[in-house]
Amino acid sequence: MFIDTISQPSLLLDERRCKANIHRLCQKAREQGVTLRPHFKTHQSKMIGRWFNHEGIDQITVSSIGMAKYFAAAGWEDITVAFPVNIRQVEEIRGLASEVNLGLLVLDTSSIDFLGTNLQVPLSIWIKIDVGTHRTGIRPEEISSLAAMAERISKYPNLNFVGFLAHAGHTYQSRSMTEVQQVYNHSLAALVELREAFADRFPDLLISLGDTPGASMVEQFGPVDELRPGNFVFYDLMQEEIGACTLDDIAVAMACPVVAVHPERMQWIIYGGAIHFSKDFLTLEGGRKCFGRMVDITGGSWSTANVERNPFLISLSQEHGIVQCNEDNFHLCTPGDLSLWLPVHSCLTADVMGEYYTTDGQYVDHYRQRVYK
Amino acid sequence: MFIDTISQPSLLLDERRCKANIHRLCQKAREQGVTLRPHFKTHQSKMIGRWFNHEGIDQITVSSIGMAKYFAAAGWEDITVAFPVNIRQVEEIRGLASEVNLGLLVLDTSSIDFLGTNLQVPLSIWIKIDVGTHRTGIRPEEISSLAAMAERISKYPNLNFVGFLAHAGHTYQSRSMTEVQQVYNHSLAALVELREAFADRFPDLLISLGDTPGASMVEQFGPVDELRPGNFVFYDLMQEEIGACTLDDIAVAMACPVVAVHPERMQWIIYGGAIHFSKDFLTLEGGRKCFGRMVDITGGSWSTANVERNPFLISLSQEHGIVQCNEDNFHLCTPGDLSLWLPVHSCLTADVMGEYYTTDGQYVDHYRQRVYK
Repeated sequence: MFIDTISQPSLLLDERRCKANIHRLCQKAREQGVTLRPHFKTHQSKMIGRWFNHEGIDQITVSSIGMAKYFAAAGWEDITVAFPVNIRQVEEIRGLASEVNLGLLVLDTSSIDFLGTNLQVPLSIWIKIDVGTHRTGIRPEEISSLAAMAERISKYPNLNFVGFLAHAGHTYQSRSMTEVQQVYNHSLAALVELREAFADRFPDLLISLGDTPGASMVEQFGPVDELRPGNFVFYDLMQEEIGACTLDDIAVAMACPVVAVHPERMQWIIYGGAIHFSKDFLTLEGGRKCFGRMVDITGGSWSTANVERNPFLISLSQEHGIVQCNEDNFHLCTPGDLSLWLPVHSCLTADVMGEYYTTDGQYVDHYRQRVYK
Repeated sequence: MFIDTISQPSLLLDERRCKANIHRLCQKAREQGVTLRPHFKTHQSKMIGRWFNHEGIDQITVSSIGMAKYFAAAGWEDITVAFPVNIRQVEEIRGLASEVNLGLLVLDTSSIDFLGTNLQVPLSIWIKIDVGTHRTGIRPEEISSLAAMAERISKYPNLNFVGFLAHAGHTYQSRSMTEVQQVYNHSLAALVELREAFADRFPDLLISLGDTPGASMVEQFGPVDELRPGNFVFYDLMQEEIGACTLDDIAVAMACPVVAVHPERMQWIIYGGAIHFSKDFLTLEGGRKCFGRMVDITGGSWSTANVERNPFLISLSQEHGIVQCNEDNFHLCTPGDLSLWLPVHSCLTADVMGEYYTTDGQYVDHYRQRVYK
């Protein structure tokens, strides 16, 4: 078995679980006539991108110009960079926009003027709306600002005003179907209202929403044009806590050698730290931190059957992980054994690792691959 | 100026500050006749390694076998891997030990047997002692376990028992000179006692301690043989909070474009998130989180003169950073400007970035360099 040969921290990808996640959401969007423009910042992989393409996806979302270039080189021709446009990258934007249909997000008129004046290439322009996450975006009630921005975009022949885009990131604070549904409804209503308010002047505007809890948990997407979730390709413990997936849907796991055991504290030390998992954590009952939960190696992949009985990761330093056991599970590993861990936040775990291996040992690329291992 | 040309998140290295940090500690150790075996896990750079070599350093510490290979390839010949030995990497250990004087840490007799039986190459073996950090190591009072381990090491002709090694990581919880001094004294006393207890049977044993607060703040190192601090090469906001450095000693800063401003919340959004800074934070008065503090771009580098008056980073998502301003500093940046940030934990920031640029634009290597930018 490939897993048995792993000698250092490695991010395993379960192809079956991953393809099932992709298929489920592609089908759901297709059935409801909603465009799925998946966010590729979670996997950042050309190979996994092809799995989406096999499901009929041909429009994607990324979070940086560099990531857009990576996927453009793999043949993707319709790419939205869902991040406030960074005008310092004007040269790279020019190059990219001459190759693909490039979508950019704007939040102010000076950036619109910059793009209109400094670039002759055609660009699809979205206005970023803040539907309640309060990270970035224009509030939907600021109609006069939005109208001024829309008119400013129209002034420039190379800029095509395509619509209003929002990220309902506050679903991440939700812990139930009802809460996620409320956030989704509220976000969608705000965008629909904008689409209607601008319909006379701009009859073809689109509205785009994107977050994994909403896309996974909401049954009926309603009158949205486009969805841009990303994390659902892998899911993770955070999504499981929200209720967006089951533990068994999580498609990546960190394989980490156990290097020491401390019976006096019922703890193991694993080779696997902040530089492998990243440092996001869940807060469990009683205030304890959890940086990962252990699954069992079985049948060439892993099983989640014993997650509740298994130890969990309570602390990460640069390369060490501290695992808290109890009397019933301390015996499960000794130094030299391999342990497998579901990550708290799979986007960041994949990014720090910069590569994956399928459970049968196939190398899977990542945009931010490391030169040395 | 190079800094003005930066278009995306970049980790800047101030060569003058970094070399001053290296020089200060090398000189202090030299004056006290203590071996400095600096931990290279913070910078992970061959170029910065050469700056240590110019100060007379020829013994180093790393945190993984891969990192040891990286520095062995750069000509370093005496390398301790300060991490519990990972016997799953036996092949790489064999290769490395045939090229350099390789030091490994053991915590149990089964690992000793494994190294003695499976490797014919000479290895320097340290027993890892837990001086109170409670991450990993044998407690110093477990004399009979330690004696059994020492005898087991001696059984194998290829294993050379060199001494007791500890990491007083609990200085990171300290917030004063007195606390750091107490931890140092206590840790050193425990190791000295062990050296004496084993002196009849093993007269040449060494004791090795390593942490940046101790090495920076303790005036007299006392009867220690070797020190292995790492972070002092850059320092960071965490070390400044402990009292191990001043803000002006911090030798790295993240350069991040400002991409949006939100006057209604007095916030900026910067292009710079968890994948650039990593996610360690400080908790400020009132419970607010701080992921970075802003310095001013001046004279081709940066100035810390206004740090207290500048905004600070309150939140990081994958690629976004949220900066909290007030009425006095909100005007300092508009979209398209570059902002500079002192990191909370420089080891992790350098690791996620995988490269540096000096303030005059020279590329500086990192072991975990990314292929694509």
